Amino acid sequence: MGVMDAYQHIQVKRDGETVRITMNRPSRRNSLSEDHLRELTAAFSEAGQSDATGIVLGANGPVFSAGHDFGDVAARDVNGVRDLLNICTNLMQTIQSVPQVVIARVHALATAAGCQLVATCDLAVAAESAGFALPGGKGGWFCHTPAVPVARNIGRKRLMELALTGDVVDATTAAEWGLINYAVPDDQLDSAVDDLLARATRGSRSGKGIGKQTLYAQLDRPEADAYNIAIPVMAALSQSAAAKEGMAAFLEKRHPVWPD
Amino acid sequence: MGVMDAYQHIQVKRDGETVRITMNRPSRRNSLSEDHLRELTAAFSEAGQSDATGIVLGANGPVFSAGHDFGDVAARDVNGVRDLLNICTNLMQTIQSVPQVVIARVHALATAAGCQLVATCDLAVAAESAGFALPGGKGGWFCHTPAVPVARNIGRKRLMELALTGDVVDATTAAEWGLINYAVPDDQLDSAVDDLLARATRGSRSGKGIGKQTLYAQLDRPEADAYNIAIPVMAALSQSAAAKEGMAAFLEKRHPVWPD
Amino acid sequence: MGVMDAYQHIQVKRDGETVRITMNRPSRRNSLSEDHLRELTAAFSEAGQSDATGIVLGANGPVFSAGHDFGDVAARDVNGVRDLLNICTNLMQTIQSVPQVVIARVHALATAAGCQLVATCDLAVAAESAGFALPGGKGGWFCHTPAVPVARNIGRKRLMELALTGDVVDATTAAEWGLINYAVPDDQLDSAVDDLLARATRGSRSGKGIGKQTLYAQLDRPEADAYNIAIPVMAALSQSAAAKEGMAAFLEKRHPVWPD
Repeated sequence: MGVMDAYQHIQVKRDGETVRITMNRPSRRNSLSEDHLRELTAAFSEAGQSDATGIVLGANGPVFSAGHDFGDVAARDVNGVRDLLNICTNLMQTIQSVPQVVIARVHALATAAGCQLVATCDLAVAAESAGFALPGGKGGWFCHTPAVPVARNIGRKRLMELALTGDVVDATTAAEWGLINYAVPDDQLDSAVDDLLARATRGSRSGKGIGKQTLYAQLDRPEADAYNIAIPVMAALSQSAAAKEGMAAFLEKRHPVWPD
Repeated sequence: MGVMDAYQHIQVKRDGETVRITMNRPSRRNSLSEDHLRELTAAFSEAGQSDATGIVLGANGPVFSAGHDFGDVAARDVNGVRDLLNICTNLMQTIQSVPQVVIARVHALATAAGCQLVATCDLAVAAESAGFALPGGKGGWFCHTPAVPVARNIGRKRLMELALTGDVVDATTAAEWGLINYAVPDDQLDSAVDDLLARATRGSRSGKGIGKQTLYAQLDRPEADAYNIAIPVMAALSQSAAAKEGMAAFLEKRHPVWPD
Repeated sequence: MGVMDAYQHIQVKRDGETVRITMNRPSRRNSLSEDHLRELTAAFSEAGQSDATGIVLGANGPVFSAGHDFGDVAARDVNGVRDLLNICTNLMQTIQSVPQVVIARVHALATAAGCQLVATCDLAVAAESAGFALPGGKGGWFCHTPAVPVARNIGRKRLMELALTGDVVDATTAAEWGLINYAVPDDQLDSAVDDLLARATRGSRSGKGIGKQTLYAQLDRPEADAYNIAIPVMAALSQSAAAKEGMAAFLEKRHPVWPD
């Protein structure tokens, strides 16, 4: 398992085609100290370079993640906090940049930067007893950066309600709003995660990896700009071994054999 | 009450921590003449500089607001209409720029620029008997500017249906689409508004004020640009008295005492 | 009927105020070869220059459209595929640029660029038995360009699920997500399309045409930029014969007589 054993705050396990990254600071409610953030980033980067097809981000303990660790924030000056937020943002951008499908397995409360993690993952499944909140507005600081990916998953009025009230919305509501894909009975969480991951990782690994990255590149832009991003990528990838095999298999009415 | 008494078209009342701004041109269906728009802008600006924590925008009479006052528009040339639209847009931007939480209390039909007002407020609660429409498309002109904030609250197909048909959608549908936060039985409108406002204004006033303003700044941009806006604000505000007190109270397991 | 009879892959019929464009390659599942794309673009351009008020895009056969025709794609080099994608994108942009209201009538499965067509139309109504998918992710290539308009109709988590799993979502789910306006019982598809089209095409043709075009221009941009686009258009159009007549009729409490 090599480097994986070196982590203090997380567990990393290779499970077939899947890398399971599990936050494991239950006594600190999986709060995101600098060390914790750096371990998560390293684990995602390492998994991103592996031949895995999917990554599941989960957590141990009574809380999925409570967000930033105030014990780590409170003593920092403005430059120190900025460094911490850059490290946190780098984790979020790493999650979106790895070629694997990343799915959040949310078994419990996800707040602030913990909610940001869920919003950032490509897909998310939550237990019905889980909840989501941006509580910064209640606490003097404010969830400025957690709101960035949350705003890109749900409508504006709902974003404002989350960010201004700080109240918890339940998993069913989060699914209706589009913050997560599915809310499922607690005892079906693992099977629902595995089912969605299996469906999302079928087919050509390289095709999906570049596909995911291009989706993030084209979002949140005027439509013509998005086409200007997507067209050259799609044209170039039409010549990939995976695309060639996919089209040949379709035209020859046989199952494809993926080259990667 | 000072300047507040000088208004002709609106009523402004300080009610504890809340400023209640009420459109009061029922005989003109609260249509938004230049004078009406200027009074609303002045009232929001004045409330914005007060120590209130919330603002409720409501209306008297059978209609919440019917939008622009054609009696004021019809005689204007293109420059005159542009001036009027700039005044209207300035009202919308003022609503989003004040540090208070602004909530629309929608008791009846909100159409055209009246619907724009609802879409622009941070939060909105409507009576189940209320309705929402962008009727310009039926009337020769078109709801070009009202559609701007509506488009930033609901999905594109629904925007197109509203703008092209001009038909009224009921409050329950508007809540499902995300144009408003809640549709409630008519006799529960005030309690629902007060409940949401209380939840949204808890905590540090300064933290929420800058929080709200930063949310609007980061919306509708590529995610990396949004982080570039949110990170320096969040870093700087980590040093604010409110954030320091919030973190200290959390770490010391006591209730915070907000400095502002 | 003139040029209309020249089409090989589509049928074009003028029906009162409506132009009905029907994909008619059922044996190829209405896949979008270059010739098919060019015919659709020509038909939309021609309809766009007509005095029709609405366009219905439908299809014959067991599938609405299966997307790009792999028989046409597989032999192309990168430049050839880029040309094809530009032709496809030009069709999408033509649909949004014509002044008519364009409504998709989806009776069956719409996948890949077929789903892109539905997402691109101003409005869409589907039979309950229809379905929607972005299957490229399963097939080696990836639905990079189909995802562009789909992303601008539905939330991000749902986009990721569609694009990564490639699975079909049914029409009811598509309506909940906002990809289409309505899912209706199969035997009510035509009446639902006609009802929505009638509601969307009432009133001034010129007002709606420029209205629709301005909506697309202002979408997916920061709100202040959108106002900067919408304000001068709305001011200029306040002087149009249609707007003048609409306001006069309102103020004089009579039915308008549209000048165009």
